[in-house]
Amino acid sequence: MTDVGQIKKLLNDPAHAVDELVASAVVAHGGLLVAPEPRVVARAVPGSPGKVGVSLGGGSGHEPAFLGYVGPGLADSAAIGNVFAAPSPDVVLASIMAADHGAGVLLVYGNYNGDVMNTRLASKRAKASGVDVRSLFTTDDVASAPPTERDRRRGIAGEVFVFKIAGAAAESGMPIDEVERVANKANDRLGSMGVALSGAEIPGASRPIFESPAGQMEIGLGVHGEPGVRSAPLGPAAEVAQVLVETIIEDLGIVSGDRVAVLVNGLGATSLLEQYVVHGSVVELLGKLGVVVERSYVGEYVTSLQMAGVSVSLMCLDDELLGLLDAPARSVGWTS
Amino acid sequence: MTDVGQIKKLLNDPAHAVDELVASAVVAHGGLLVAPEPRVVARAVPGSPGKVGVSLGGGSGHEPAFLGYVGPGLADSAAIGNVFAAPSPDVVLASIMAADHGAGVLLVYGNYNGDVMNTRLASKRAKASGVDVRSLFTTDDVASAPPTERDRRRGIAGEVFVFKIAGAAAESGMPIDEVERVANKANDRLGSMGVALSGAEIPGASRPIFESPAGQMEIGLGVHGEPGVRSAPLGPAAEVAQVLVETIIEDLGIVSGDRVAVLVNGLGATSLLEQYVVHGSVVELLGKLGVVVERSYVGEYVTSLQMAGVSVSLMCLDDELLGLLDAPARSVGWTS
Repeated sequence: MTDVGQIKKLLNDPAHAVDELVASAVVAHGGLLVAPEPRVVARAVPGSPGKVGVSLGGGSGHEPAFLGYVGPGLADSAAIGNVFAAPSPDVVLASIMAADHGAGVLLVYGNYNGDVMNTRLASKRAKASGVDVRSLFTTDDVASAPPTERDRRRGIAGEVFVFKIAGAAAESGMPIDEVERVANKANDRLGSMGVALSGAEIPGASRPIFESPAGQMEIGLGVHGEPGVRSAPLGPAAEVAQVLVETIIEDLGIVSGDRVAVLVNGLGATSLLEQYVVHGSVVELLGKLGVVVERSYVGEYVTSLQMAGVSVSLMCLDDELLGLLDAPARSVGWTS
Repeated sequence: MTDVGQIKKLLNDPAHAVDELVASAVVAHGGLLVAPEPRVVARAVPGSPGKVGVSLGGGSGHEPAFLGYVGPGLADSAAIGNVFAAPSPDVVLASIMAADHGAGVLLVYGNYNGDVMNTRLASKRAKASGVDVRSLFTTDDVASAPPTERDRRRGIAGEVFVFKIAGAAAESGMPIDEVERVANKANDRLGSMGVALSGAEIPGASRPIFESPAGQMEIGLGVHGEPGVRSAPLGPAAEVAQVLVETIIEDLGIVSGDRVAVLVNGLGATSLLEQYVVHGSVVELLGKLGVVVERSYVGEYVTSLQMAGVSVSLMCLDDELLGLLDAPARSVGWTS
């Protein structure tokens, strides 16, 4: 699938790809996004004074994440790192300042060492300037650590639900304690798991991060090529859906009658046709289990360059989370 | 790139993939879409009585086209064909009836033999039932025939602009003659051209439609693998952008001071990061030429399964087209 040197890319200088991405995105979405610094994206029309700020960030190569979730009803800013690398503390600090409207800022980042370290350094400096900074590190990937070590789990595509919940809560005027509470509730009730069919190849690299043999799928593989749970023969979509859904359901303790939001996320090279087929299988299985699918989202929300594969995320809903999920939002990656 | 048998797919039975797609999409987008027949998608909340109907259609494998452009401010219905195959006359007829609110229906389809033939057969039958059916076949692909044979050109990704203009015109209450006029104006002022880096592989097929050698790109290749203009060494994104933009500009007679909308469309496997890099190069070049970029759209609007590559589309704007482009719309593929 990913023979060395065979993944052709449309780039100029790979070393400048991320800067070109940011510059291009703020031109394309001029009424929505600005870049107050080269690696910081913020709303073109800032939130109201006194609104809690929500700030995202992470490595590039996951587009539309993370700049695609900046906008009214969603985040105030995003810090942009190099491909698959955490943004630097300086960039994170600038993104915190861009999100600050005097009522505190909640950072929502995936739970990766680099992101945790750099946001902590930046938060310390922002706090010294008087900003009330809180941090939430998403941990939705059930394949990345056992339930007893939930804090070690990494964040993958399901984190867009946390972005949306936090953004809607802040927009509704909740104080930072409340924004933090509902965002944590969303993360606690969220599970994701993916399969990869081919590896991502970083711009400028001579080979993909990993290779998946013909006829095999890599279950639980991370979005940067981190080790998965196991390799298995690639079966029909319904079988893949069953492996993912049953693992998540067991992990979250979802039972008949529970209400969920479903996300089927394409990792990059897998067609939308396939994503909808997988979604159909997920919904059918949940129906058989008596789980109520309140909302579904299908598409490329958090990608991994041109990796082939999908992830499935389930978030257990209550009325509060459903209301925040449905609240108006406008961004490149999510409009409701 | 596309060695035989190496493109892994997440499907159940390839023969049922399109039916599963439609069933899954109406579940995922329940408030927006319904399927009055297995291969017809229509708005969940129909347009007002007396509104001109707009109906799209074509083969599957181009998702989010065409069902992704059904919704308020856009189309009333879409007819869904098999992968890369025109919908049957029966399906087109049912989709016309689903779009009819008593004020006529404009069909907007790509200019392909199967689509032209099947929509003509269906239109004849709809007219016999008293529906005023008009047809527009999009012809934006400048690579597919010389300017002197514009009517022979095929429709590619730029046609989403025609969908949007026609949908907004109908929603605004224009009579069918006016909807037809502005939709034709959009198509007349529109040019697209693409490059492919790898071939699409139809579900169930044992090999891709075409193969692109390492280090080469196929310029002007059609979205179903139709012959392109030429094969050339794959250069930087700026070079690719230059070839596409200069060809379109010359074809449309765009000069300094003209106002355009830009679409950079991903064909499937090319990352959004790359699409934004190409967009940056397109905008830079247009700026140097004095062309005013009023609006930009970047993303997967009309795909070709997991084909790698992008297309660039330019539409010359006047105030009328810009107003219709900006008018509110809500659909899977376009929300404004």
